Amino acid sequence: MPNEERLTRMRHAMQRERLDALVLRLPENVLLLSGFWPMIGATFLVFPAEGEPHCIIPACYESEASASLWKMKASFYAYGVLGANPDTAVLDMLSAIARSHRWKRLGFEGSFEVAAPPWNTAEVIVPAAQTRKLLETVFHAADLVDATALLQSERRTKTPYEADKLRLASTISSIGLKSFEDLVAPGVSGVELAAAVERDIMVHGTQKHGAFRVRAFAQVAVGPDETAVGYRPNEVSTARRLVSGDVALLELGVVVDGYWADRSRARVAGKPTDEQLRIFNIVKDAQKSAVEAIRPGASASYVDEAARSVIRDAGYVEWFPHITGHGLGFRYHESSPLLSPNSPEVLEEGVLTSVEPGIYRKPSGGFRLEDDVLVTRDGAEVLGPYPMALT
Amino acid sequence: MPNEERLTRMRHAMQRERLDALVLRLPENVLLLSGFWPMIGATFLVFPAEGEPHCIIPACYESEASASLWKMKASFYAYGVLGANPDTAVLDMLSAIARSHRWKRLGFEGSFEVAAPPWNTAEVIVPAAQTRKLLETVFHAADLVDATALLQSERRTKTPYEADKLRLASTISSIGLKSFEDLVAPGVSGVELAAAVERDIMVHGTQKHGAFRVRAFAQVAVGPDETAVGYRPNEVSTARRLVSGDVALLELGVVVDGYWADRSRARVAGKPTDEQLRIFNIVKDAQKSAVEAIRPGASASYVDEAARSVIRDAGYVEWFPHITGHGLGFRYHESSPLLSPNSPEVLEEGVLTSVEPGIYRKPSGGFRLEDDVLVTRDGAEVLGPYPMALT
Repeated sequence: MPNEERLTRMRHAMQRERLDALVLRLPENVLLLSGFWPMIGATFLVFPAEGEPHCIIPACYESEASASLWKMKASFYAYGVLGANPDTAVLDMLSAIARSHRWKRLGFEGSFEVAAPPWNTAEVIVPAAQTRKLLETVFHAADLVDATALLQSERRTKTPYEADKLRLASTISSIGLKSFEDLVAPGVSGVELAAAVERDIMVHGTQKHGAFRVRAFAQVAVGPDETAVGYRPNEVSTARRLVSGDVALLELGVVVDGYWADRSRARVAGKPTDEQLRIFNIVKDAQKSAVEAIRPGASASYVDEAARSVIRDAGYVEWFPHITGHGLGFRYHESSPLLSPNSPEVLEEGVLTSVEPGIYRKPSGGFRLEDDVLVTRDGAEVLGPYPMALT
Repeated sequence: MPNEERLTRMRHAMQRERLDALVLRLPENVLLLSGFWPMIGATFLVFPAEGEPHCIIPACYESEASASLWKMKASFYAYGVLGANPDTAVLDMLSAIARSHRWKRLGFEGSFEVAAPPWNTAEVIVPAAQTRKLLETVFHAADLVDATALLQSERRTKTPYEADKLRLASTISSIGLKSFEDLVAPGVSGVELAAAVERDIMVHGTQKHGAFRVRAFAQVAVGPDETAVGYRPNEVSTARRLVSGDVALLELGVVVDGYWADRSRARVAGKPTDEQLRIFNIVKDAQKSAVEAIRPGASASYVDEAARSVIRDAGYVEWFPHITGHGLGFRYHESSPLLSPNSPEVLEEGVLTSVEPGIYRKPSGGFRLEDDVLVTRDGAEVLGPYPMALT
């Protein structure tokens, strides 16, 4: 069942930009407009403003592609060796497409510097000079237009189809939050916690409510030195073992069939100090305050301030060095919205944002609590809700 | 302790190509010439043909960077929000470097379409149009030269320093081969096997012989339908459970502090059929034959034929649809050498290649056996040796 709303919206956006077609290679964008999340980045999607899309796919993934690709033309080519130039087969297929149209303006992924991995996260294929040269050769009669801003802008608000997928990703991510809750204890190491969270999500998430391809990326920092280094986009997991009174800070990215969740939790092994309990509750209140501030029409800076003011009033604002949240969905982090003090953005229905205030201070350690929140018609929905508890 | 041989070699190569400096952003190339493997792709390395290199690093990873960066100038900048353009701080630091030199030819990573993930595999930062524009702005007096071919060519032969790191990566990957051996049994699913292999490598590999950052990427296909679809660059793990007589096929990539291993094993749950045993032994003999053919001066096609002829003589060559091996080291797969029937390449000391023949045929299933082999002064060394057994 295709995501008709997405296809219609994208065609309208392309007409506004006078783009005759998009040629996409990043797995996250192939997924957006075809329903198929490539195992590796060797799939090309040609998406015209009018007419049938055409997906060019390595033949060895034909069964997986056929199970998810929306109704469109599909061609398969024998996939050779990683690292080689795109096959002659791809060149021939694209050339045949070029000959049968008179496209004048063609959008491509020129400025995606941050990319989600495909299902095979060990190796990422991205468009670079070769892909650009291929497009210039094949579509020599057309202007190549960098469509990165258009794609990112369109990805900002999610359709109901996509919201369902993202709800499932968050629900499956909660499997890992429970594992973390169960396992934090003196004597356990950061890498043991991270590995257990990743394992449980993959083993118990696969096939849950139809999920097929599930991967988790966990980082667990433990103790004050590892958790209170200011903010890091990702914590660092080491073999250091929790001692009683240490905090464990989990940063968790989860992908389910190409749709992402981003969660964080902090727990103390053994008995927390009074200050740890105090900080935890401040962060929890700040997180709740921001979630309650989210609705269509709310500014991103207003939501940030809803969290930041709680932390400021409690006297900890200088230990909250990052923004309150960021967009996500087709990637672990997306460029919009950013819930920051100076953001000019306004939220609207369909926007998905993380809400993740934190306080990082020695000797207590670092505490961050994060859920993903969807802007609904008249408020906000926390996806895959799961409790926040210190112990 | 810097890898002096690598630095000297690269400077000679740059002089041959009349490159005044390289500006590198891909984590795999930053590692090559600085010793530091970035957690995320937001580090820039400026490596001049003469004079001191300069590494520009997000401040939140200062402790990890300082622990591994070779002696060179290091600058740290406050890292903002993923997805934004490179910070003004990076622009300013690069501009200061540009003003203090009179570089005329500058190499950049223009054509890397396949990239290794950084330690944070959930999100990959790669150079695209923004990085190119940044370099054009900052180094406006210099010609930008695509240095991709130079870097890939130099990466082909490994120095002794790098061979040590790669030996450790393969040794650690064997932890997962043992887990796979221990766990294959009727009733176990592909995702359970993959998750256990990944977990065991991360938990038991971290801190082994000084390994700090260890990640595994396992795929386990089970049964004839999943394993005998012809060759796939990566198998597909599902929730399907092994039944007695099924083959389980493990494809495993492992990264240890930026250095990669690539292994495969096949095992049967319960009692194998005569044909399964026969196919397994043919693949094992073919693998051994290729390893024995490897030495300096041997052609890549000769090594491929050493494996292929064993399979041909046994009557199974039409079910061996891929090449015998590929280069690796700074990535899961590198572009050279390729052990293929038509390769014009000749092996030399320091080359690292996988050796991985396979036979994929129903109803027996798919069998592939893979080790990584280093070309030594007078022969070949299997890295991290581990037995190959069907049951």
